[in-house]
Amino acid sequence: MIQRLCIVGLGLIGSSLALALKRRGAVNEVIGYDCSAEHREKALNLGIADRVEANLKDALREADIVVLSVPVGAMKGLFQKIAPDLSAQTIMTDVGSAKGVVTKFAYAYLRSHLHNFIPGHPIAGIEKNGPESADSRLFVHHKVILTPLPENNPLAIEQVTKMWEYTGATVVKVSISHHDEVLAMTSHLPHILAYALVDLFSQCEHPEDFLQFSAGGFRDFSRVASSNPIMWRDICIANHIPLLNLIDQYIDKLGDIREAILQQDANTLTELFTRAKSIRDSYL
Amino acid sequence: MIQRLCIVGLGLIGSSLALALKRRGAVNEVIGYDCSAEHREKALNLGIADRVEANLKDALREADIVVLSVPVGAMKGLFQKIAPDLSAQTIMTDVGSAKGVVTKFAYAYLRSHLHNFIPGHPIAGIEKNGPESADSRLFVHHKVILTPLPENNPLAIEQVTKMWEYTGATVVKVSISHHDEVLAMTSHLPHILAYALVDLFSQCEHPEDFLQFSAGGFRDFSRVASSNPIMWRDICIANHIPLLNLIDQYIDKLGDIREAILQQDANTLTELFTRAKSIRDSYL
Repeated sequence: MIQRLCIVGLGLIGSSLALALKRRGAVNEVIGYDCSAEHREKALNLGIADRVEANLKDALREADIVVLSVPVGAMKGLFQKIAPDLSAQTIMTDVGSAKGVVTKFAYAYLRSHLHNFIPGHPIAGIEKNGPESADSRLFVHHKVILTPLPENNPLAIEQVTKMWEYTGATVVKVSISHHDEVLAMTSHLPHILAYALVDLFSQCEHPEDFLQFSAGGFRDFSRVASSNPIMWRDICIANHIPLLNLIDQYIDKLGDIREAILQQDANTLTELFTRAKSIRDSYL
Repeated sequence: MIQRLCIVGLGLIGSSLALALKRRGAVNEVIGYDCSAEHREKALNLGIADRVEANLKDALREADIVVLSVPVGAMKGLFQKIAPDLSAQTIMTDVGSAKGVVTKFAYAYLRSHLHNFIPGHPIAGIEKNGPESADSRLFVHHKVILTPLPENNPLAIEQVTKMWEYTGATVVKVSISHHDEVLAMTSHLPHILAYALVDLFSQCEHPEDFLQFSAGGFRDFSRVASSNPIMWRDICIANHIPLLNLIDQYIDKLGDIREAILQQDANTLTELFTRAKSIRDSYL
């Protein structure tokens, strides 16, 4: 049982985590902080937080666990702001999609608190935003990745692990570089491809005319382009090294397909499409 | 009521159409033809066809409506084979995703039958193949596009329209070039992007390790890569002109995003992602 949980950032992930723990009876009190007054009010009205604070210092007071659920780009500033007010006992974790950058800032600004800061990332999310989208079942049967630091206190890792397990998630521990490389492929690149497609689409003369003739493929493919632009801008910038590498490889791959279509090279197309189908069918 | 319907090609679309019309009581007898003995047997066992024929000529005999539901690349050969055995009264339509090429072959090989050949394309389909995937509700609330020819007999257009309406679909008539341009954007390009992503993915050292950390985005994005490779190879080649144009535009768009990430250009990324989100949210 967590006595006092502080959620910093009342978006989809932070709000869903609070709801999940409350429904499970795994937390006694949730304190919510968000720089948006609208988010704070909604979180209070929806029963996501028992109390909300407009002042970060007030929100942190006597928290047992603090969860930082803000866009990755806001982490540096948040660490700087939060560091002086953190008690040595407070355990902290985050939910950012790019762990290299978050960890770099943690080493820079949380030096005296590194034993209790456990970097984390729940592999769950939908294209909806804000506390009004909170779903207490968002993490059920999902993976939560932790990338513990050598400095971490094993008891703090255990507490954060338990917290996520209460939501129905499975916790997995991997290295920071492995996390960032894998997520660039399975999440960050697909988001960029979807944003690019929808943006191209928006340049059609009459997109509404086009949409009436779109089937499930376009709908599913473009779904993630409804995700939070600020969050994804931050992820792109934070995880730019593996991501740029993958974008280059993807452009090369598209170039190969383009060339095969141009040359009416049926064999190459059949081979590539068959290989892709077989991978998709066997793994998913 | 259609007295005798002949389905040439007992894949997902042809089989689903037969089932839909049977369930609705809109057809008296369905004759199935497929070059695969396995497909013929399954279609018979699953009640998709009342009779199957291994000989195309036998299948066509006294058919009121013939539906050609084969990959686009097989259309030329099929037109050549079918032309001598078609009665002047038989109405024919197809389901190909690229109407320019199908029509070109129709003008080349169906000269004496152009009045009764109505090119068509149901905007429905899933990533499953074969008669075992047939679904009598596949076309409900979906669009079916017809691209009638100037030579078409209005009564034949009406019959094909009615046939599709029996399945629960809405029939829309557009020009051939408009069809091919729109479908390249809403369907053909997304399929290629998904095949390219999954193929890139397959080159990871341990794709299974990557997949355990993938969430809904990757799953939805890559779904269409499980589609029939032969069908999609044919579509790419058949509709190559608008498709190559779009692939080029898409590579340019990805290049813009790549550059913005490289330059850590937060404004450009925010602008592009926000525009895409707004389009996706408003139209879908």
